Amino acid sequence: MSEMENPYERGKELADAHNPGLEEALEARYGTLLPGMPQDLISFVYGQHYDRPGLSLRDRSLATIAALTALGGQTAPQLRIHIEGGLNAGLSRTEIAEAIWQMSLYGGFPAAINALNVALDVLKERSETGL
Amino acid sequence: MSEMENPYERGKELADAHNPGLEEALEARYGTLLPGMPQDLISFVYGQHYDRPGLSLRDRSLATIAALTALGGQTAPQLRIHIEGGLNAGLSRTEIAEAIWQMSLYGGFPAAINALNVALDVLKERSETGL
Amino acid sequence: MSEMENPYERGKELADAHNPGLEEALEARYGTLLPGMPQDLISFVYGQHYDRPGLSLRDRSLATIAALTALGGQTAPQLRIHIEGGLNAGLSRTEIAEAIWQMSLYGGFPAAINALNVALDVLKERSETGL
Amino acid sequence: MSEMENPYERGKELADAHNPGLEEALEARYGTLLPGMPQDLISFVYGQHYDRPGLSLRDRSLATIAALTALGGQTAPQLRIHIEGGLNAGLSRTEIAEAIWQMSLYGGFPAAINALNVALDVLKERSETGL
Amino acid sequence: MSEMENPYERGKELADAHNPGLEEALEARYGTLLPGMPQDLISFVYGQHYDRPGLSLRDRSLATIAALTALGGQTAPQLRIHIEGGLNAGLSRTEIAEAIWQMSLYGGFPAAINALNVALDVLKERSETGL
Amino acid sequence: MSEMENPYERGKELADAHNPGLEEALEARYGTLLPGMPQDLISFVYGQHYDRPGLSLRDRSLATIAALTALGGQTAPQLRIHIEGGLNAGLSRTEIAEAIWQMSLYGGFPAAINALNVALDVLKERSETGL
Repeated sequence: MSEMENPYERGKELADAHNPGLEEALEARYGTLLPGMPQDLISFVYGQHYDRPGLSLRDRSLATIAALTALGGQTAPQLRIHIEGGLNAGLSRTEIAEAIWQMSLYGGFPAAINALNVALDVLKERSETGL
Repeated sequence: MSEMENPYERGKELADAHNPGLEEALEARYGTLLPGMPQDLISFVYGQHYDRPGLSLRDRSLATIAALTALGGQTAPQLRIHIEGGLNAGLSRTEIAEAIWQMSLYGGFPAAINALNVALDVLKERSETGL
Repeated sequence: MSEMENPYERGKELADAHNPGLEEALEARYGTLLPGMPQDLISFVYGQHYDRPGLSLRDRSLATIAALTALGGQTAPQLRIHIEGGLNAGLSRTEIAEAIWQMSLYGGFPAAINALNVALDVLKERSETGL
Repeated sequence: MSEMENPYERGKELADAHNPGLEEALEARYGTLLPGMPQDLISFVYGQHYDRPGLSLRDRSLATIAALTALGGQTAPQLRIHIEGGLNAGLSRTEIAEAIWQMSLYGGFPAAINALNVALDVLKERSETGL
Repeated sequence: MSEMENPYERGKELADAHNPGLEEALEARYGTLLPGMPQDLISFVYGQHYDRPGLSLRDRSLATIAALTALGGQTAPQLRIHIEGGLNAGLSRTEIAEAIWQMSLYGGFPAAINALNVALDVLKERSETGL
Repeated sequence: MSEMENPYERGKELADAHNPGLEEALEARYGTLLPGMPQDLISFVYGQHYDRPGLSLRDRSLATIAALTALGGQTAPQLRIHIEGGLNAGLSRTEIAEAIWQMSLYGGFPAAINALNVALDVLKERSETGL
């Protein structure tokens, strides 16, 4: 069970590479109310999911963007983060836009349109900052 | 607007390749109650989505499997079809399982577990039939 | 506040007309575990909603069928009841089918297709029983 | 299959009548990222749904308002558009309010209350502009 | 059926104790468009649910906070009210935070994180006002 | 960070007490397709959630039952497990039924009724087996 031994450390390494300062931000915001929650989140999300072999980080981003689009509702803040992450992991702008638009088939048009608006915001910001 | 000109014909070609007999099945089941619905579905789903350039069919399958998992609820029949389709489009068993399990982060554990059960059923059937 | 005075009695009258035996069935099934629940349900659902002026029963059925379709998931048993009710309240088979199919725009294709299957079952049963 | 032949043209005519400038607005916003998407949306939503015979535009608006209310979440922008559209298609203020409030039964009270708030905003704006 | 006789009066008493001015606020906002709706809401929500014996008000608050978190989407305004109500009914800050965080298992991480943010806002406001 | 050190071992102990054989069952079913998944699930669900201090196991069960009811859809298998677990953790039959019925306010009547049906099944089975 060596793979189990340290999900937090594996997750921490991945989080630091892709989202520097995440643990500190979570700690500052949620750590007093929920002791250990920042470490648990990093351990489970990054160590026990995104760091798993068998599906590339680029593909994991694609799957997440599709799901957050289809779920709609309150996921805009997370969708923004994962569109950024997906671009960093190798997804093209077009691939992201196509995956979101395809979700009109499964989550309905309002979900797809609202997620496209989030994507346009992210892309505009990156253009303005030269990314 | 040449791309617009015939979404039904483009969709029909793709549907025939991946899902032979689909239009006839839709026609037999829904065509009397909803005239034209089978053609509209093929036109929109296959011609105006899955046949679009910019995202591979393999990636479209991955996005759909992730979204149907996260949506949960009544999507089991569609999930089954898209797991089959994803395997045919080049996704490995592991990639599909990883994408589904990752959805525990966004759609919750019940959604992920129930979709894994659908995947296990599909994989078992394919093993038994030598696929 | 005369309209408020007896929602249960107004609801009971409407329920008896459209769904004879409902209170007894609810009582037998849920009344021991949840005393008063059958009366509360009849009071709220029938007395304080379906019996309200301002929207016809036919239109209320249409709205309900659309919503249950879009919500998808576990609503099949309720959808079946409301398709029956809608036919009794004056909706045509075509109107019901069109409203359901239109929900592919808002609830996605799986939701619309699964609800169409419920509608086909109801219509088939009514044909067989001469309704 | 003459009905199939030109869903885009049928949709375009309906969209122009009810929502002038829609295609141009979609093109300006999404057309570069997703070529053809504005035409596909008009073709499918307007040409292959709202323009279908069998259910009146007024009834289609009612069904959509009910569904968007019940779905809740991110649908406020779309709900606003469809309440406007429903009033234009012949629904009364009362009918719209009643349909929304009835959705407390199926989508829960938060969904119904939040949609009523959207309706009040739309009605207030129309009063102020003399509609 | 004495328990049925006056759900409005029982609900009114409970609403006045926990949410003074609620009926007047509902009446001013929704009463013209939907006559009787404020009374129906108080009757059903307070009289026929929160006032029922068999589950304490503190436990009802806990159940509601968990459900609104898991549903996500548009429930932030209602969640805020019920976190306030739960604190008043005896839930500790920690119990509320733990229940919300646990919902990452069932409604996904975006739902849990967004609800934690609502809770932090409520707790901060109460600290500032000396509650 | 001693609390972080071994979420799997803490989770395993809790899982063994409440759900003996769980890891073996997960391993047999999902372990080949998703190596380490059974351990990750036990670590996160049991070690990093249900074993946390700050909210009693009885209250965690109540929160989960409420959320699974409101989410509706595909959660019936999980709801069944948590109703069992809630009874074992000290919730009364009435408390469970009341929490479920209250969810008609947030998840709608179909969600509440369907969950009540699951609860009735569980209670009936326990009666028959003398629990």
